[in-house]
Amino acid sequence: MSEFKRSGERAADALRPVRITRNFTIHAEGSVLIEFGNTRVLCTASVEEKVPPHKRGSGEGWVTAEYGMLPRATHTRGDREAARGKQSGRTQEIQRLIGRSLRAVFDLKKLGERTITLDCDVLQADGGTRTAAITGAFVAAHDAVSKLMISGKLAATPVVGHVAAVSVGIVEGTPLLDLEYIEDVNCDTDMNVVMTGLGHYVEVQGTAEGAAFTRQEMDQLLRLAEKGISELVALQMKALNE
Amino acid sequence: MSEFKRSGERAADALRPVRITRNFTIHAEGSVLIEFGNTRVLCTASVEEKVPPHKRGSGEGWVTAEYGMLPRATHTRGDREAARGKQSGRTQEIQRLIGRSLRAVFDLKKLGERTITLDCDVLQADGGTRTAAITGAFVAAHDAVSKLMISGKLAATPVVGHVAAVSVGIVEGTPLLDLEYIEDVNCDTDMNVVMTGLGHYVEVQGTAEGAAFTRQEMDQLLRLAEKGISELVALQMKALNE
Amino acid sequence: MSEFKRSGERAADALRPVRITRNFTIHAEGSVLIEFGNTRVLCTASVEEKVPPHKRGSGEGWVTAEYGMLPRATHTRGDREAARGKQSGRTQEIQRLIGRSLRAVFDLKKLGERTITLDCDVLQADGGTRTAAITGAFVAAHDAVSKLMISGKLAATPVVGHVAAVSVGIVEGTPLLDLEYIEDVNCDTDMNVVMTGLGHYVEVQGTAEGAAFTRQEMDQLLRLAEKGISELVALQMKALNE
Amino acid sequence: MSEFKRSGERAADALRPVRITRNFTIHAEGSVLIEFGNTRVLCTASVEEKVPPHKRGSGEGWVTAEYGMLPRATHTRGDREAARGKQSGRTQEIQRLIGRSLRAVFDLKKLGERTITLDCDVLQADGGTRTAAITGAFVAAHDAVSKLMISGKLAATPVVGHVAAVSVGIVEGTPLLDLEYIEDVNCDTDMNVVMTGLGHYVEVQGTAEGAAFTRQEMDQLLRLAEKGISELVALQMKALNE
Amino acid sequence: MSEFKRSGERAADALRPVRITRNFTIHAEGSVLIEFGNTRVLCTASVEEKVPPHKRGSGEGWVTAEYGMLPRATHTRGDREAARGKQSGRTQEIQRLIGRSLRAVFDLKKLGERTITLDCDVLQADGGTRTAAITGAFVAAHDAVSKLMISGKLAATPVVGHVAAVSVGIVEGTPLLDLEYIEDVNCDTDMNVVMTGLGHYVEVQGTAEGAAFTRQEMDQLLRLAEKGISELVALQMKALNE
Amino acid sequence: MSEFKRSGERAADALRPVRITRNFTIHAEGSVLIEFGNTRVLCTASVEEKVPPHKRGSGEGWVTAEYGMLPRATHTRGDREAARGKQSGRTQEIQRLIGRSLRAVFDLKKLGERTITLDCDVLQADGGTRTAAITGAFVAAHDAVSKLMISGKLAATPVVGHVAAVSVGIVEGTPLLDLEYIEDVNCDTDMNVVMTGLGHYVEVQGTAEGAAFTRQEMDQLLRLAEKGISELVALQMKALNE
Repeated sequence: MSEFKRSGERAADALRPVRITRNFTIHAEGSVLIEFGNTRVLCTASVEEKVPPHKRGSGEGWVTAEYGMLPRATHTRGDREAARGKQSGRTQEIQRLIGRSLRAVFDLKKLGERTITLDCDVLQADGGTRTAAITGAFVAAHDAVSKLMISGKLAATPVVGHVAAVSVGIVEGTPLLDLEYIEDVNCDTDMNVVMTGLGHYVEVQGTAEGAAFTRQEMDQLLRLAEKGISELVALQMKALNE
Repeated sequence: MSEFKRSGERAADALRPVRITRNFTIHAEGSVLIEFGNTRVLCTASVEEKVPPHKRGSGEGWVTAEYGMLPRATHTRGDREAARGKQSGRTQEIQRLIGRSLRAVFDLKKLGERTITLDCDVLQADGGTRTAAITGAFVAAHDAVSKLMISGKLAATPVVGHVAAVSVGIVEGTPLLDLEYIEDVNCDTDMNVVMTGLGHYVEVQGTAEGAAFTRQEMDQLLRLAEKGISELVALQMKALNE
Repeated sequence: MSEFKRSGERAADALRPVRITRNFTIHAEGSVLIEFGNTRVLCTASVEEKVPPHKRGSGEGWVTAEYGMLPRATHTRGDREAARGKQSGRTQEIQRLIGRSLRAVFDLKKLGERTITLDCDVLQADGGTRTAAITGAFVAAHDAVSKLMISGKLAATPVVGHVAAVSVGIVEGTPLLDLEYIEDVNCDTDMNVVMTGLGHYVEVQGTAEGAAFTRQEMDQLLRLAEKGISELVALQMKALNE
Repeated sequence: MSEFKRSGERAADALRPVRITRNFTIHAEGSVLIEFGNTRVLCTASVEEKVPPHKRGSGEGWVTAEYGMLPRATHTRGDREAARGKQSGRTQEIQRLIGRSLRAVFDLKKLGERTITLDCDVLQADGGTRTAAITGAFVAAHDAVSKLMISGKLAATPVVGHVAAVSVGIVEGTPLLDLEYIEDVNCDTDMNVVMTGLGHYVEVQGTAEGAAFTRQEMDQLLRLAEKGISELVALQMKALNE
Repeated sequence: MSEFKRSGERAADALRPVRITRNFTIHAEGSVLIEFGNTRVLCTASVEEKVPPHKRGSGEGWVTAEYGMLPRATHTRGDREAARGKQSGRTQEIQRLIGRSLRAVFDLKKLGERTITLDCDVLQADGGTRTAAITGAFVAAHDAVSKLMISGKLAATPVVGHVAAVSVGIVEGTPLLDLEYIEDVNCDTDMNVVMTGLGHYVEVQGTAEGAAFTRQEMDQLLRLAEKGISELVALQMKALNE
Repeated sequence: MSEFKRSGERAADALRPVRITRNFTIHAEGSVLIEFGNTRVLCTASVEEKVPPHKRGSGEGWVTAEYGMLPRATHTRGDREAARGKQSGRTQEIQRLIGRSLRAVFDLKKLGERTITLDCDVLQADGGTRTAAITGAFVAAHDAVSKLMISGKLAATPVVGHVAAVSVGIVEGTPLLDLEYIEDVNCDTDMNVVMTGLGHYVEVQGTAEGAAFTRQEMDQLLRLAEKGISELVALQMKALNE
């Protein structure tokens, strides 16, 4: 159905090869290296027995995220945000998105007064870092929760469903699933979709980079995203069962 | 079709009273006070005969936005961002959205090497500040362009269409148009939609605040937004013709 | 007595038209739009039931102020201080002045352990923003105190007098009252005077912009200021009685 | 004439012992340690052959100042501003005052396109640090100008007069000249006066710390200040002739 | 010769297993993952055709480094420096050390007016992160230089020797080579040594954590370091030959 | 033994004239002006009856240091760190070194839960500011401890030995003690050595500025440093006995 030719003869509705490596580092309660093709994001889940001020005394926990990109994860070196002294608007937007997405599948009451922080650090970027981060962070968070249950700190899981994310876009008129960098740069419309394992929407963020897009195009993109996310959820399950 | 009772007997698919006051202040090239009910945003358009580094020498102009909220625009006083020394993630997210939305209807080549900065400052907040800001900023930008044309600096308008925005959401199961604060706080799903005068999408940002939402709910919300935005575009036209 | 010709045939010892609009916004305990000619400042008074560290446990309250200018309140757009990440020296100087001026007419013991914060935001600038801010902030603070008394939180008023402020200066040899921007830019000597309703001084800040000024000139300026402030206090009273 | 008893039997209208040590450090073009009793401020004047942006290409120079206080210049240790990451409002207010005061006696055209920066660092504080700083900075600036003239970089002096400063205040009803710390803390009215060698005013900054002050009190204070400054100017001359 | 029992039956004078993985990521001109036991540092070398201000027009290049640690590289989560808004003193100290160490084996004239930036990011920490970073950064820099030579941008190598680093310390009286975290925490004396391939010193940084150390102890530590570094240089060579 | 000719006919192994002036300022518990030739550093010791968070409730005290340089302490004016909004990496490195050095001769348990802060501010720089700072800070800290003992707040001294520091370096092949600025700039190898009164090492920081240095050179430098420090300790004792 597509006329735009993707790298590696990838079909318009195909994900890039996805790899999920659990226990990638040793200290974190959950540590996952997730790869969407050449995009590689290290997602760690850290459990701390305290909550931010707005949750103190509430009996509820908190799930939050931070996002970063190593300076040379990209084609040309970017500024180190720690050296520049502040996080960019893009970084803040992404880490807020990751946090909201994860909280959508957490019952904070069941988590108790503790915080899970998802650190998503991009080691190598080739498009889709935020969607890979969400998809990998879920697995890291799941591992952290498993440790809490094994250690007896939690009796019941606060995880109420899967969450995964993928980007879709229209490049030269062709709707594509899981954009890599070269496609992302050239797309007219770019959409990041976050869905639960049940196929419901957590976030939809569509942006016209060039011309505004029609309702029909949006429908095409949503269908592609739904297909991709159901595959990602299956891959999460497989990884968690290993 | 709705069971949730809105303030002032407003229908589920009705906008709040919208007022667009042009030339609200005297110095800016465009200056618009826009009101969506009790939400009041002052949008000024400033023209500067220079462009940011990434556009220098390109022959193209730039359109950008900054957003702020007066400390007591809200029910309880918020920190002044200038005093705290940085803009919040929310502020940055909103001003990036406003900038992208306006650029969607600007032909930057026709603008020439100059910058239009839209300052959107919330004097009073009651939900929907970012959508009011986009809708008002368009009128301010339009006025600024008119001045450039009248003064002979521009021969043809770089404005290629209208852009307006509205929020929609599901509160207690009822899809509602143009949420006010009390509805926004209680909604399960919150969506900001930015569209052109031709009814195409510039941005769609939907977030599940509570439960994830279904495809059917998204379709209901998109229909409501389309209705609201076509009304807002008509109001922009009316204001510009006065 | 003057040879310098002012705009609108204003006399050297005349204030610009002053307008004081109470309840300009709906959320703040006091909300006043004050206009000195084309200068327009929104002054809100916010009451919080807590005090800063140096007053905790003292039984005394605190009155403080913050000042800001919208980026396009002026002829050319200024940097947004929140975006730049810090308040300028000028901003800090002004907000410290407003705070001190208001505290001069407050009995902090009678206020009890609560804080009134005056936010003075310049919507449109044409000289004299700090003096308009002080004059308007007094009315906003007064309204906030009235609400505290009506609600029974205060039995007796902590307000011990009126406070108002005006600028005076010497332009081309002529002493002028209430400088507008074009006069301020061209003046040799610029003085901001803050006085109580009883005609006593709270602050006198005189600066030689060009040549140093004589004692005789200072006396002329102080007489002008006294005249202006007594008129402003009468206008505050009138506004508070409406 | 005074009932308040000052330390060391000082008369109400007497300065503390003033010492002006030129060439206190070796690198700066002007380097003066000035002492007003126990207040000790190191004032250095640095000449740089460049001007800030707003003076570039104007043919004019610039004179500016920075102020700092060593953390333990005071009774109890204060935060180091460099460690805290920003200068306080008080620091900025003072350094702006010093800069304006020095510019009042400089003909910037005659200075040529160069900058003189006055760094005023308080080694030991006992009240009156800003007035000592202005008085000492003048001597340091004068020395720097002399070096420019000796080296042939300047043919005529850009210094058009002397400038000095002193604080005055009312303590327990008694008007006092040159307040030391313990007097400053207890005063009702505090005024800093900056005057030229000809007895004209450069700055008058009077503040009611307790009760507002009357015109009569202001007149008393201005007379005291005039006396003190004429003595300080004489001491500057004496130091410059050594 | 040792009485302190190390993990994994390691001898007091033995390095941990060292692994050097070249081309760990794809975008950077040099990209090396170096592992000293459980310590894992990603070192990338980025070439930019520009130099910092102090080298402009000099004909010379520059070599510099930045260092960071992922928040959960350690046993407990540390603050993200980008979020906190500044780099710690420790971070700055380390990145300055890495930069100096690499410049010791670079002929900046031969490099020409370009900059090589070494980004050393700790993915997992178990002691010795700065010494691993220096050792790995050399290999990454070498790879970047090789690319410059292959592309014809450099005719002769600016690399004039090897550089590597190791930590040594005294734990419970026993001098140990290449401390892991648990040893580092408990050591009395901690020394980081940077040497060239010829066995000369680039940096020696010894610190008494507990009791001050004697000249004899320093000599023991320097011998251990010399042994370790000669082994590391051999491993660098081996890796570069693969 | 030297071929490099030092200023003032100083021998290669000679310190510059050292002056230690106690009670240089009046407020601090310890206040020492130390001079190494033209290098002049004001070291104050401030005692506060509180400890940083990591020591709270431990029964132990803390000793820490801050370092600063007045903008015109040097040949050309440097930025004021407070104005720039952050301390440089060099500043942080030095103040961390001073703090560690002082803690090496303090028994923090005996100090009790209080903090001694050493502020080391360079009034005039001519090389060796950090080593002068450490040497002077010890005397200031000793004075502060004496006051605590005299006032009965401490029964036994927490000071367990002397600490002093000196720089050594190789200039044009000649090992030199106590480098002044012109030597420091031209040296191949620069080493800062911190030792106790018993001749043990607290810190050794050697850096090859040009060519890497040999073990034999390091030995020469360490011998020179040992000689210099024993002389400095004798001077500290003499000053403390006056």
